[in-house]
Amino acid sequence: MQIIKVRSHQREELVEFTTEVQSKLKDVGEREGICFLYVQHTTAGLTVNENADPDVPRDMLHALRTLIPQHGMDFQHGEENSDAHIKASVVGSSVSIPFKDGKLLLGRWQGVFLCEFDGGRERQVIMMIK
Amino acid sequence: MQIIKVRSHQREELVEFTTEVQSKLKDVGEREGICFLYVQHTTAGLTVNENADPDVPRDMLHALRTLIPQHGMDFQHGEENSDAHIKASVVGSSVSIPFKDGKLLLGRWQGVFLCEFDGGRERQVIMMIK
Amino acid sequence: MQIIKVRSHQREELVEFTTEVQSKLKDVGEREGICFLYVQHTTAGLTVNENADPDVPRDMLHALRTLIPQHGMDFQHGEENSDAHIKASVVGSSVSIPFKDGKLLLGRWQGVFLCEFDGGRERQVIMMIK
Repeated sequence: MQIIKVRSHQREELVEFTTEVQSKLKDVGEREGICFLYVQHTTAGLTVNENADPDVPRDMLHALRTLIPQHGMDFQHGEENSDAHIKASVVGSSVSIPFKDGKLLLGRWQGVFLCEFDGGRERQVIMMIK
Repeated sequence: MQIIKVRSHQREELVEFTTEVQSKLKDVGEREGICFLYVQHTTAGLTVNENADPDVPRDMLHALRTLIPQHGMDFQHGEENSDAHIKASVVGSSVSIPFKDGKLLLGRWQGVFLCEFDGGRERQVIMMIK
Repeated sequence: MQIIKVRSHQREELVEFTTEVQSKLKDVGEREGICFLYVQHTTAGLTVNENADPDVPRDMLHALRTLIPQHGMDFQHGEENSDAHIKASVVGSSVSIPFKDGKLLLGRWQGVFLCEFDGGRERQVIMMIK
């Protein structure tokens, strides 16, 4: 089991950490399997998506914010972050990525992102290899 | 392989069953790995989210219902539960949670929920440890 | 590790490939475990949902298109497919399905779908057994 710390700086932000995952995978030394990542928080998620054009994560946060705004949906949870909890469940709390020869089998445009919906904060991601 | 039965009582309901998962995990006796949960239904899903304030699951169901209402979206599926099928795919049919020393590595506020979108019913969840 | 090629013919399409997954699983010869599927693309996803009535996938694509249309949401990504990237993260890039006695433990109405959001294309899905 490995721990990866990911730091966000804005309330909503997609923070790529593919390099950290690949680096930890190299440390583990396994050749083939599944790299499982899990975020231990309820207002952040994990996703795999395009890491080439920063407008893709920007558009994703924009669309989610449009559909599930922080205010105006008659939320009752007192912390004013129900939108963040909902977005976290929509993207999900874990991702799994296959690897071979010690390398993540990401597609050409794929990167691994922490989806921050109630930052900026330091978030903890657990990594396990199977 | 373990089977967990989860009972819902309303059409839309987030039913927490963290205790059942932890209990089955104890029965299995493994120390470290991934606890994989899978729901064998197409109008219910699984998610990990906050289990402290009941307003969080309430707000989640409210937002999903606002975005994808049961009626009024010109659905063609004859059973009047297309909204439930769609919500099931949005939250997903499985969750995976790492564990260590026989305990689920849930964050401080995290619980495991069956997301019922077409209940009340008894739902079947398959649990596997890897 | 197995590779499954899935062909879509429309921009948005849910392409069922349950038979191919079950067939590859038979080739592998394992009796019990988790069948993990991963799509190496950023404008397509994977989901498990009803495969009996074609109106269910039709309604799902319709709802996602209504919520996240290709045009009109002020997207900045220049390829006019931000909607596809977002939908891919909403449904997710992987699914995991338990199996026993060499058979996928799908519920009565469940099938495995490639969620194409920017086709038609040939897509590559990686399958691993654990």
